[in-house]
Amino acid sequence: MKTENNLKKKQRTSNQNTSYRNFPMVPRVVFGQGSFNQLGDILLPKRLNSEAPFIFLIDDFFEKRELVGRIPMMFNDEVIFVSAEEEPKTAQVDALVKRIKETFEELPSGIIGIGGGTLLDLAKAVAILLNNKGKAQDYQGWDLVGKPSLYHVGIPTISGTGAEVSRTTVLLGPEKKLGINSDFTTYDQVILDPDLTITVPKEQWFYTGMDCFIHCIESLNGTYLNAFSQSYGEKALELCEEVFLQDVPIMESRDKLMMASWHGGMSIAYSQVGIAHAMSYGLSYLLGIKHGIGNCLVFQHLEEFYPEGVRLFKKMLEKHKILLPKGVCSNLTQNDFDILVNVALGMEALWENALGKEWKNIMTPERLQELYQKI
Amino acid sequence: MKTENNLKKKQRTSNQNTSYRNFPMVPRVVFGQGSFNQLGDILLPKRLNSEAPFIFLIDDFFEKRELVGRIPMMFNDEVIFVSAEEEPKTAQVDALVKRIKETFEELPSGIIGIGGGTLLDLAKAVAILLNNKGKAQDYQGWDLVGKPSLYHVGIPTISGTGAEVSRTTVLLGPEKKLGINSDFTTYDQVILDPDLTITVPKEQWFYTGMDCFIHCIESLNGTYLNAFSQSYGEKALELCEEVFLQDVPIMESRDKLMMASWHGGMSIAYSQVGIAHAMSYGLSYLLGIKHGIGNCLVFQHLEEFYPEGVRLFKKMLEKHKILLPKGVCSNLTQNDFDILVNVALGMEALWENALGKEWKNIMTPERLQELYQKI
Repeated sequence: MKTENNLKKKQRTSNQNTSYRNFPMVPRVVFGQGSFNQLGDILLPKRLNSEAPFIFLIDDFFEKRELVGRIPMMFNDEVIFVSAEEEPKTAQVDALVKRIKETFEELPSGIIGIGGGTLLDLAKAVAILLNNKGKAQDYQGWDLVGKPSLYHVGIPTISGTGAEVSRTTVLLGPEKKLGINSDFTTYDQVILDPDLTITVPKEQWFYTGMDCFIHCIESLNGTYLNAFSQSYGEKALELCEEVFLQDVPIMESRDKLMMASWHGGMSIAYSQVGIAHAMSYGLSYLLGIKHGIGNCLVFQHLEEFYPEGVRLFKKMLEKHKILLPKGVCSNLTQNDFDILVNVALGMEALWENALGKEWKNIMTPERLQELYQKI
Repeated sequence: MKTENNLKKKQRTSNQNTSYRNFPMVPRVVFGQGSFNQLGDILLPKRLNSEAPFIFLIDDFFEKRELVGRIPMMFNDEVIFVSAEEEPKTAQVDALVKRIKETFEELPSGIIGIGGGTLLDLAKAVAILLNNKGKAQDYQGWDLVGKPSLYHVGIPTISGTGAEVSRTTVLLGPEKKLGINSDFTTYDQVILDPDLTITVPKEQWFYTGMDCFIHCIESLNGTYLNAFSQSYGEKALELCEEVFLQDVPIMESRDKLMMASWHGGMSIAYSQVGIAHAMSYGLSYLLGIKHGIGNCLVFQHLEEFYPEGVRLFKKMLEKHKILLPKGVCSNLTQNDFDILVNVALGMEALWENALGKEWKNIMTPERLQELYQKI
């Protein structure tokens, strides 16, 4: 799950003087095999007029595939294929917004993101920036978005990121990898159609599923948790264990992993991720390693922090015969390691969640570099 | 959980030609001990003007209690105390709407329901009827509400009904007990403050908690379930078992039961209750027995349909030394039994969910009357 220190300090304890986040939930959700077919009916009443198109941002993986033919196009609607090879970037958001503004005289009726975490995050950011001036990087942070985003719909085609339900869109900016955390980020509508994940390649399925699994291990073992987030996190974890360790029939397995991602994303409301996510951010920033596999590369070496979680993770690797790349950090310079360590240690809330208020005494730069050197 | 046949027939199977409900989720939720204190901050931006009051409908149980002093009143806001001794009625909704319209020149800025299922259902219905002409009974059914309801906030003070998250408000009308099932029924905002349940009397705590437990047993054993509702239902059931069968510390227990109610209510999206709810409707209609205890009275005699659930239920009764009333139906006439049986058998979707399409061959009027006679 791509999230960062998204809990304000005042939200960390639980008593009468505490203020808790008023969490925005996705106000509309459809779940079911084949529910993608309902997209046309769902969009129709949201169309502002015949000049205000719907823009479908879709992973270019689907470019020649059957799914594209099922997109309910009308009038001047447009499909834009986007590569998800790299992590989503603020410049990419700005370019998409510019292109849409230049192509159409009116603002779109809405933005539909179809794909994995990258596409879902891009669509959220585009919907925000079409109605807010300036550049995407201006809004990286907490509650910096002033105006509502355009109507936007999220349709995941892979399960595990939780981006379909979270109130952030994590972007690689010129200076930092950081989310646009805002109440306007959350999707207005989500369609959960497990059939859309049929085409996911096996490695991708595993790494993205592990995004959810690792997220749950981190938040359930963290210091920030409350009963709301705990109940969602526990359910997501249970579903991940069913999917990756038991022999669930394939259709049921797709259903369950989609629900695991959903509940895992919900659990972020009052929880926080931990060490694997902090370190994975460093790998993304320096080496462009994608979030899912980055989490896996790190997590395998975190036995001392998450003993039970890492044990299960290794069982899952084995069961599905996944071989993680080796020597990823073997040719890095000291300067590279300094960058990795700095980016990771910058995620203070994640470390505090994982190791408590005295985390700086526990995770020194030297110790962190040693962890990176194992990868 | 007060729900009825709220799944359309076409939603019952899962394939490419199926249409699934586009479920409305509560778009804003706060969870935390003491979060009631945030109500003022939450309402402020929703105030239309100084002449448009907020109306607080609150269980008269709180009339002389500390909670009333914590209601954030401004301008001409009004607190209305409502008895929850009886099941909510359509006439009661109409009377409240009339009173509010006569007292104020402008429509209220919003309605805040504070209490158990009765208050939460009344507040939903009042918010609908203030913006839709006619009487409450006109809207009992499915998707009959034409205009959005007024902004409405739900604040449960007891856990188990799921009314805080459901898209129905079940009312006793002149002719039937039936919900106003509509996308406009769902609350715009919910505040989940487990501390508000501190004052709940023990029997009430048990019966209302069992509403959630029985609901989960019924939906998880039903024929309508999909993975979305299953995951919520399983989590709610797990939490009920923790709360009622394990020795969870009291604060944690309140937290968990509030989340059980929440997840149980969510699970209704694509599931359905069963025999206990159908029969309990009869008891409410004929004898005015409240929903929570009515479910318990029935459920104890349903071993043959829900063996594991009834076994757990009896353990819970024993652990908490709850003695259910006896001989409730012992003085009824044949005419009374006919009414009970007719009301219960009228809930066709519940029976189909419980017993399959051939339910009429399994549950005859005679067999049903025998079950009622045990109560």
